[in-house]
Amino acid sequence: MKKVVTIGGGTGRFAVLLGLKKYPVELSAIVTMFDDGGSTGRLRDELGVLPPGDVRQCLIALGESGTLMRKLFTHRYHNGGLEGHNFGNIFISTLEKITGSIDKALEVAGTILNIKGRVIPVTLDKAKLIAELNNGKIIEGEDALGEYQLVSRFGIKKIYLKPKARAHPKALQAIREADVIVVGPGDLYTSLIPNFLAKGMSEAFIKSKAEKVYVANLMNKHGHADDFKVADYVRILEETIGKKNAFDTVIYNTSKPPQSLLKRYADEGEPVSADVESLKGKYKLIGANLLAEDVAKVAKGDKLHRSLIRHSPAKLAKILAKL
Amino acid sequence: MKKVVTIGGGTGRFAVLLGLKKYPVELSAIVTMFDDGGSTGRLRDELGVLPPGDVRQCLIALGESGTLMRKLFTHRYHNGGLEGHNFGNIFISTLEKITGSIDKALEVAGTILNIKGRVIPVTLDKAKLIAELNNGKIIEGEDALGEYQLVSRFGIKKIYLKPKARAHPKALQAIREADVIVVGPGDLYTSLIPNFLAKGMSEAFIKSKAEKVYVANLMNKHGHADDFKVADYVRILEETIGKKNAFDTVIYNTSKPPQSLLKRYADEGEPVSADVESLKGKYKLIGANLLAEDVAKVAKGDKLHRSLIRHSPAKLAKILAKL
Repeated sequence: MKKVVTIGGGTGRFAVLLGLKKYPVELSAIVTMFDDGGSTGRLRDELGVLPPGDVRQCLIALGESGTLMRKLFTHRYHNGGLEGHNFGNIFISTLEKITGSIDKALEVAGTILNIKGRVIPVTLDKAKLIAELNNGKIIEGEDALGEYQLVSRFGIKKIYLKPKARAHPKALQAIREADVIVVGPGDLYTSLIPNFLAKGMSEAFIKSKAEKVYVANLMNKHGHADDFKVADYVRILEETIGKKNAFDTVIYNTSKPPQSLLKRYADEGEPVSADVESLKGKYKLIGANLLAEDVAKVAKGDKLHRSLIRHSPAKLAKILAKL
Repeated sequence: MKKVVTIGGGTGRFAVLLGLKKYPVELSAIVTMFDDGGSTGRLRDELGVLPPGDVRQCLIALGESGTLMRKLFTHRYHNGGLEGHNFGNIFISTLEKITGSIDKALEVAGTILNIKGRVIPVTLDKAKLIAELNNGKIIEGEDALGEYQLVSRFGIKKIYLKPKARAHPKALQAIREADVIVVGPGDLYTSLIPNFLAKGMSEAFIKSKAEKVYVANLMNKHGHADDFKVADYVRILEETIGKKNAFDTVIYNTSKPPQSLLKRYADEGEPVSADVESLKGKYKLIGANLLAEDVAKVAKGDKLHRSLIRHSPAKLAKILAKL
């Protein structure tokens, strides 16, 4: 069975996992461990655990659909002292606290959710994401960086983890043994790049014999990636990884989201341009309609922004499965 | 296999279940659903569910020991927004909220904890425990009643549920089919009597052909049962049930707790007198040393009072198993 590793974040990666789990592949989802916002941030602070939010999303994506346990893990409280918390986050964090091991917590949660694949934290070290902009401004924390609206204007001079974090040996092993590594979709600075900041990850990625695929976002994040083309994402990622042409294949969307959604999304950003002229000859380019047809719902009590314009799990997986 | 139903509360009933689950009997624990204090009260208010605390205690007592899930279900948070909450309570309440059924929630939790036996809520109706004292004072809520220090002095004129609650058909069925019904140990007014206030319970109890056993508490609760003898408990219970000699057998402790523990317990109450003179000839009387040898620990972050002087599960079960 082909081994596929995914690196990404948010709803984009959720779609990748949801789509790929229907194919006969061995899936590993590598997850950043630097989220410090929302329910995740509170649990992290109060229980002294690693952030549970992103691993939970991956567990749910890989879990058996339609089960009561899945429903339980996605349940978000919308009043009282538990407001904003999510049951899955509480479950994972409490198990980690009791066992002292996020790996053990993920193993138990994975069994309960009957997941297909593995979820691997990119690091077991507790670290913060720090970004230094070209104007000297220092932004501390993934949540703060995600919210900061002037990243594009000044550009990031340096992005790093504090303290330094070593990649989880299981993440490095998965990268080494992978047949395909899918990077993206996901927010560039808060979901993709942080993975490559964990010590050992970039080197392992470069050395790996896997086919390396970048799946471009559908939308540019306003304030972070204004007017970005697909090539901009590839360039910045490769600068972080430390190797030109680190990717073999670039997958991007060629279909325009419906005008009504674009209007509702206008404050968040614009579609990523499908102009890939500058990438021609250097990468295998796959442009296709990758849009999900249904509009995503925002869960009640959910304080985080969830994208309305999303990748279609089926369309993405069909393309990835051909690689 | 003999069918044993237990009605009780707190650490006393915990000991009964813990002890009996080692014997080849079919165990059903009937649980009051009127607790409104602590983590349970908050979840009840905020999520609009039935109180999870007492059912959780029974699930844990009946669950497989030494498992990670058991550890998870007993975990209490001692800081942050989850302070005072217990994971098991959150689990049960969230499942009930999602499924709309406490029975379903208990079934899932029971499977996860690999319990031996069943936990049955005495009612599925949401009701409050109300006590009217002989001085006219009305006390609303189980928690308030438990805390009220002048119950003994004035005596209870009337105790009832508001609104009226019907007994859960499963509880009535368990009572009907039981070979032995064990009432107690447990706080008289907050753990034992409320069970018989659910419509249908007292009648079913009286009609049942089971051997009906009362297991007396070790300690009188100060302010509630000052200077009570075993006979006082039996009398008040039978008044509630509505039948003299409703019990066949009375089991009570004859051994004095160590002086050091009695000192630490002095504010809480005094041992229940082993003088059972007035019960002779009317009940099968079994007096024995029922004390646990180890001193119970109080969990960190636990806001509720937990008894230090406890029944020995093994000693209790040995006597009950002979019936």
